Amino acid sequence: MVEKEAKETKTPEGYFVYVGKKGVMAYVLAVITQFSEGAKEISIKARGKSISRAIDVLEIVKNKNPEVKVKAINTSTEEVETDDGRPLKVSAIEIIIKK
Amino acid sequence: MVEKEAKETKTPEGYFVYVGKKGVMAYVLAVITQFSEGAKEISIKARGKSISRAIDVLEIVKNKNPEVKVKAINTSTEEVETDDGRPLKVSAIEIIIKK
Repeated sequence: MVEKEAKETKTPEGYFVYVGKKGVMAYVLAVITQFSEGAKEISIKARGKSISRAIDVLEIVKNKNPEVKVKAINTSTEEVETDDGRPLKVSAIEIIIKK
Repeated sequence: MVEKEAKETKTPEGYFVYVGKKGVMAYVLAVITQFSEGAKEISIKARGKSISRAIDVLEIVKNKNPEVKVKAINTSTEEVETDDGRPLKVSAIEIIIKK
């Protein structure tokens, strides 16, 4: 089943952190900053190999802030384009955390 | 019954697939085989960088078998030992799927 899923899920306030190839603490800091700016819910998103890093971000945030809870973890398959223009399916994750 | 691996969480019937460094289809096949053996629930587990592969396994299984649903996704931090004996924290994931 081919599914080109547009993940448009947003937290009520639209806070999100997209986890890519930077060091994990960069994303942890982004999450902490958004909470300190008043976010009640934050969506942490990642695709492909960055998914493991998103889980690291989640675990570090949870371990540092026991009041942070996971509201939902959703996975999907997204279709992206390779550098030479071919379609490629990648897994994606969205972790919604709340305080 | 011989138990090859220690596992803390069990599905009711004890079916699980531990995702490591093999190709993703090896684990997809393991899941499909367990369902064909009568499993109603399977626990897919992974640690560290293999977490991304576990999500790939989940997505491929779901896309091939729309009747398979995610029952729960849990994350945790586990402490392992490096080759030179130092403690190392790694993220872990457990995905429970049901049919």
